Amino acid sequence: MSDLIARRRALLGPNVSTFYDDPVHVVRGEGVWLWDAGGRRYLDCYNNVPHVGHGNPRVVEAICRQAAVLNTHTRYLHEGILDYIERLTATFDDPLRTAILTCTGSEANDIALRMAEAMTGKRGIVATDATYHGNTALVSHLSKSNVPEVGFGLGQYLRHVEAPDSYRIADPDGRRFAAGVQAAIDDLEASGIGFAALIICPLFLNEGFPAQAEGWLRPAAEAVRRAGGLLICDEVQAGFGRCGSHFWGHQKQGVVPDVVTMGKPMGNGHPVAGLVTSAEIMARFRQSFRYFNTFGGNPVSCAAAMAVLEELQANDLQANAARIGHLAQERLQALAARYEVIGDVRQSGMVFGAEFVLDRVSKEPASEYADRVVNAMRARGILLSKLGRHKNTLKIRPPMPFGTEHLDLLMDTLDAVLAETPVRA
Amino acid sequence: MSDLIARRRALLGPNVSTFYDDPVHVVRGEGVWLWDAGGRRYLDCYNNVPHVGHGNPRVVEAICRQAAVLNTHTRYLHEGILDYIERLTATFDDPLRTAILTCTGSEANDIALRMAEAMTGKRGIVATDATYHGNTALVSHLSKSNVPEVGFGLGQYLRHVEAPDSYRIADPDGRRFAAGVQAAIDDLEASGIGFAALIICPLFLNEGFPAQAEGWLRPAAEAVRRAGGLLICDEVQAGFGRCGSHFWGHQKQGVVPDVVTMGKPMGNGHPVAGLVTSAEIMARFRQSFRYFNTFGGNPVSCAAAMAVLEELQANDLQANAARIGHLAQERLQALAARYEVIGDVRQSGMVFGAEFVLDRVSKEPASEYADRVVNAMRARGILLSKLGRHKNTLKIRPPMPFGTEHLDLLMDTLDAVLAETPVRA
Repeated sequence: MSDLIARRRALLGPNVSTFYDDPVHVVRGEGVWLWDAGGRRYLDCYNNVPHVGHGNPRVVEAICRQAAVLNTHTRYLHEGILDYIERLTATFDDPLRTAILTCTGSEANDIALRMAEAMTGKRGIVATDATYHGNTALVSHLSKSNVPEVGFGLGQYLRHVEAPDSYRIADPDGRRFAAGVQAAIDDLEASGIGFAALIICPLFLNEGFPAQAEGWLRPAAEAVRRAGGLLICDEVQAGFGRCGSHFWGHQKQGVVPDVVTMGKPMGNGHPVAGLVTSAEIMARFRQSFRYFNTFGGNPVSCAAAMAVLEELQANDLQANAARIGHLAQERLQALAARYEVIGDVRQSGMVFGAEFVLDRVSKEPASEYADRVVNAMRARGILLSKLGRHKNTLKIRPPMPFGTEHLDLLMDTLDAVLAETPVRA
Repeated sequence: MSDLIARRRALLGPNVSTFYDDPVHVVRGEGVWLWDAGGRRYLDCYNNVPHVGHGNPRVVEAICRQAAVLNTHTRYLHEGILDYIERLTATFDDPLRTAILTCTGSEANDIALRMAEAMTGKRGIVATDATYHGNTALVSHLSKSNVPEVGFGLGQYLRHVEAPDSYRIADPDGRRFAAGVQAAIDDLEASGIGFAALIICPLFLNEGFPAQAEGWLRPAAEAVRRAGGLLICDEVQAGFGRCGSHFWGHQKQGVVPDVVTMGKPMGNGHPVAGLVTSAEIMARFRQSFRYFNTFGGNPVSCAAAMAVLEELQANDLQANAARIGHLAQERLQALAARYEVIGDVRQSGMVFGAEFVLDRVSKEPASEYADRVVNAMRARGILLSKLGRHKNTLKIRPPMPFGTEHLDLLMDTLDAVLAETPVRA
């Protein structure tokens, strides 16, 4: 173990962090389970990349079959990319009917921002102050919490708006958030930069998946359209049925974005990502820039992505996400009745968690406590993480085949950890 | 066929071009061969992504084996990425001993430019006027021939230097090129932007793979170092033994870059890419920005990339590239003795071609003729392309297992096509 950590440091450099105080050396995965090198089994309550389960046989078979037959780029004709985009866009509302396939969500967001520039002739982008949209020079500036010191001055085009927080900020109908977006738009217009787009995760999953009524995003979307900008929804986390009630997070919010980007879960770990937009926006972008991505949309990536869609449908995993999300909410609320440290409980289908506070009246964040709980859960063989504006909220985001037996193990273990962990260290 | 083209247009949008007037609908690949939907076989003399051959069994087996066992990100410990980076960096000279793995060469170049910014505190980048380094907002500006209309004003940081051209521009020792680089550096410094890096393909493969003496790049590298900037070598095309005489293009040029980026051939089509640099530059970058790439360095990508290195070694494919390159040069020179239209013949191992001119004295480029030759070759079942500053040079860049029997078929067919194709249409 210490040997691996030393090799990592020598080969990868500093600041390449691992999860947990005691990092896990994983060697095998199956469904919702991971095994370490010592043969110990862990319940994976965190990884959304293996969306339909670690080592999903349908996806593995699709990758192997296609890799042995053909893998090439899209300067030749091939049905794989066309069949996949037809099936993918069928899950969207009009006019979202065209797509670009890339390898990472970062690449997709990098394109989406340029689509906004192509459509508006302007460069001002608005994002929340507790988000993450990727790692290219352009999109890395969208992160306020980890703002890069390098990046060719692109921060000048960014404005951050206060992230929604249903536990601490009263905003029942999204009008407060919309006013924040409007203020950022006004500031960009006044500065001469101009407003091009609002980019958000439609369910604000990095921000702590606030509880919101359906249609909560509509006022913000209206502000964006009034100003002539584009609404970009980053569905890298929220999409592919995870929220349970809908296939895409923006559908739950009652809005039709101009561009939707997607990534991590799309190929169950195979590097495939992309975006969907209207024919009009696609044409404008492609007239401004002849984008080509060598690996994007190759037959193997499309086979992997198609198998994920098939697996979601065959096992009705969106409905499972809705069911587990509700059960998780009940179990967490029962824990909140017994543990004062749980200030709030929230879920968006197969993303759920509890927010820890030192005091329910002051709502002082128990961030350090959340950290100890995460590590104690890892010690007991349950993998999860924390997130949110104060890093005091458990982030539980398991693969979609997570069932009630897994939920029981997770919640029973959490109960035991909460019982044994003192709130103040 | 027309159905596929119509579906492409509807689903992918305009300006998504295919190769050849009559696009090829590929369905299967094996070694240096591709098959279309009608069962016709094509000799692939163009694709460098399937570096060790289409459907290479060693690579396919590695992908299938690892995909079934585990595929996850690098926040856990795993040997795969460490074993691969150790083996990869062993092919480089000191101090190039650390790496970041990404999914595309574009991502790698996007990081490399930010490393230059982190090291120098400046943003001015120099590239040649006939190159391509990728598709992110930042790196897409490096292309002068396809300069995007969108891209957040990043073009301001770019300066282009005249690409080398051994057929038309006398520069036997690289001093003319170095003077061009120095002029671009001076311009950037005078403008207040400052000079951060020169980024080049060390063998100038997009520019037409000019004939150059070993060590030709040294004067330019010295100019870069004198100015305190970084030399970034983009080995996406030149690397992994393709040039025959060396494993990396920059080694042939007698220089040690500060950052080396790589992509396409690295995983034989599996989306894996990356960069190698010194511990010092890596640390400076990682202190400026906590870069993380979810798919980058995952166990399946590392297994694919490791299999490529093993296959190159097991079959001595670098030596094969050297041997075929020399034979190709001889065959092309024999054709040049019979066809006036061939103005020049060049090779860099498993990249070779002939430059077409309308007149050997004026050297007027026969660009339209090159286009007809490429399409006539495709009609006879040989896939290749054209490139260079005037798009009048055949680009022949086959998978590395290309043998003498394939070279004979290629050259015999080229002979027949040259015989039947009138120089002026």
